[in-house]
Amino acid sequence: MNPVLDGIAPSIIRAINARKRPGDIDLGLGEPTLKPDPRPFDAATAWVRQHGLPYTANAGLAELRARVAAYAGLPGQGAAENAVVTVGSEEALYLALKAAVDPARDEVLIVEPCYLAYPKLCALEGIRHRMVALDPADDFRPSAARVLEALGPDTRMVVLNTPNNPTGRVWPESELRALASGLAARPGPPVRVLSDEVYRELWFGEAPPVSMGALWPHALVAGSLSKSNALTGLRLGWLVGDAQTIAAATKVHQLVNTAASTFSQVVATEIFADPAALAAHRPHYAERRALLEALMREHGLRWAPIEGAFYGMVRLPEHLAANSLAAAEALLDRHRVLATPGVAFGGSGEGWMRLSWVAGPDALRTGIERIATFFAEG
Amino acid sequence: MNPVLDGIAPSIIRAINARKRPGDIDLGLGEPTLKPDPRPFDAATAWVRQHGLPYTANAGLAELRARVAAYAGLPGQGAAENAVVTVGSEEALYLALKAAVDPARDEVLIVEPCYLAYPKLCALEGIRHRMVALDPADDFRPSAARVLEALGPDTRMVVLNTPNNPTGRVWPESELRALASGLAARPGPPVRVLSDEVYRELWFGEAPPVSMGALWPHALVAGSLSKSNALTGLRLGWLVGDAQTIAAATKVHQLVNTAASTFSQVVATEIFADPAALAAHRPHYAERRALLEALMREHGLRWAPIEGAFYGMVRLPEHLAANSLAAAEALLDRHRVLATPGVAFGGSGEGWMRLSWVAGPDALRTGIERIATFFAEG
Repeated sequence: MNPVLDGIAPSIIRAINARKRPGDIDLGLGEPTLKPDPRPFDAATAWVRQHGLPYTANAGLAELRARVAAYAGLPGQGAAENAVVTVGSEEALYLALKAAVDPARDEVLIVEPCYLAYPKLCALEGIRHRMVALDPADDFRPSAARVLEALGPDTRMVVLNTPNNPTGRVWPESELRALASGLAARPGPPVRVLSDEVYRELWFGEAPPVSMGALWPHALVAGSLSKSNALTGLRLGWLVGDAQTIAAATKVHQLVNTAASTFSQVVATEIFADPAALAAHRPHYAERRALLEALMREHGLRWAPIEGAFYGMVRLPEHLAANSLAAAEALLDRHRVLATPGVAFGGSGEGWMRLSWVAGPDALRTGIERIATFFAEG
Repeated sequence: MNPVLDGIAPSIIRAINARKRPGDIDLGLGEPTLKPDPRPFDAATAWVRQHGLPYTANAGLAELRARVAAYAGLPGQGAAENAVVTVGSEEALYLALKAAVDPARDEVLIVEPCYLAYPKLCALEGIRHRMVALDPADDFRPSAARVLEALGPDTRMVVLNTPNNPTGRVWPESELRALASGLAARPGPPVRVLSDEVYRELWFGEAPPVSMGALWPHALVAGSLSKSNALTGLRLGWLVGDAQTIAAATKVHQLVNTAASTFSQVVATEIFADPAALAAHRPHYAERRALLEALMREHGLRWAPIEGAFYGMVRLPEHLAANSLAAAEALLDRHRVLATPGVAFGGSGEGWMRLSWVAGPDALRTGIERIATFFAEG
């Protein structure tokens, strides 16, 4: 057996989810509860009747690659050769790390709080990595300075996620520009930025999030239809970047799974044919977020600004803050509300609890009420 | 960039395919030309209307895992926990190598001629590996003795493929039993056998192929719906084996792509609900094979016995045998027939040419005629 697997800890998120009982209020969910538009599936089924279901090229259907690359909007990197179609954004992250990092020499710097698949993928691939934490006292505000200060002599990749799981924060253009300037000023080989933009379509500010890909030529951008279109089960994502890295990523992709599902690619091509389709669910989430914030305000909770995605970080009261896992377990056991302990997203999340707010309004109302009751207990 | 990728040679198969012009006769194809049954797609689309398209558990739908494990038929290993649903059998091969081999200590022995993804996956993962060749003079007859003789002190896995691409040979039960006995008699930790059975349903002998999984408790079996059901684009495969290894493989699977497409899994569950569905295309291939053999006989070609899959190895005449790549290029350029040089499947394939016979009867007739003409040229 491969001993590296023993060193990869099981997910805290899964452990707490496994304690859930029927009837519990689930504010832990990591996927949309909306139903997807079935029309692209009808179209894809008609396509199968006509064409059968052959492999696509390893990197995906040329039309889909071109649409994805254009959508990602990386200057000068908007052609089909700049995109590989992957099995969800999870595979895009894997391919970026596997293809673009030399495990014998390079170090990867991961901005937390974050989805812990990033460090686990590094561990799986034997890649040296360090975490750099955004400041909990500053509500996890994205900060280029913190990242730039943490760079080491061997750092060759920074991994960030915007809009962010679990914080709901969005990296503002000013901080991304500061990050790009700081990286540009650095001597030596360029530091890549792997930007996980799987929640890109779910934003609640004045303007859509800016991509690091628009500002830094050494960016690799991961995305998918999982969250924007309630299609987690489609397993359809992408990695966009310079053609040389995408070719290397495709080489890995070919060896590990040949290609993404042709059916999923046809569904995705249908969706990309209507540019409005990727933004279709945003109003739903904007409304749900407004309800959540109203409820949290009403019940006196404290939370970090929710600027995107469908999560929010709630600050635990002082008597619970030392152990977010114990707090989440007590909340579930005593009040039957599932929330995710902040520590599941890195040490900087300790003292916080992630709420997912994809559940319906009734679940949100009851859930927030019970959380407030729990917080008020001695 | 990861320097290991530079060491992985591009595929000869792709290189020769890239030379193909419109109108050429394609006897190089690696996938069925049959159309799949569209009914499971209608059912899965109806399922999406009802359920949306959420993630499945990482290892796949419990019902599908149970059906796959039962179908694989490994004694005492027929429960859901013995199967992980993968993105085609390609991912199953990757997971088996990644999870079950310690790259710091173990060596993998690969039986050739074979699909060269096996050694390339080993190279990608930094796994020491050696090839052991079946005897071209003996028409690549599967031989336990050759494998057992090649075992080294660190060999911990043998990779074999039956029915075989490119030879069309099937490992007979007697040779698999001899292999199991030889491995059982060996001191030290058990040697696993990774048995790639992606062509399992396409056999032309008296009885279906026996699986090494039925005879050796340390077997891992890879399979898929790609070839049996003309569903290469479904990207739906599996790895079956002991529960501990399947759990480790699932850990890798979760990190590299979360899960296989839910839609593909629902399609597969529909197909597995009718046990006859996996064998539905066999008569078509049996008929096509009879035609091919009649044509080759008529034109005086020499070929290795075709017992399964949809390939056959044709022996090159002496004046072409030293360079199967040059022969395939000349055949394509001068006679407009695409065949795959034997060397694309390992050194032991030199002097041979692989014919895929999924093309229609007319293509086969013209193709074999032109090959005979080409062989007869000085």
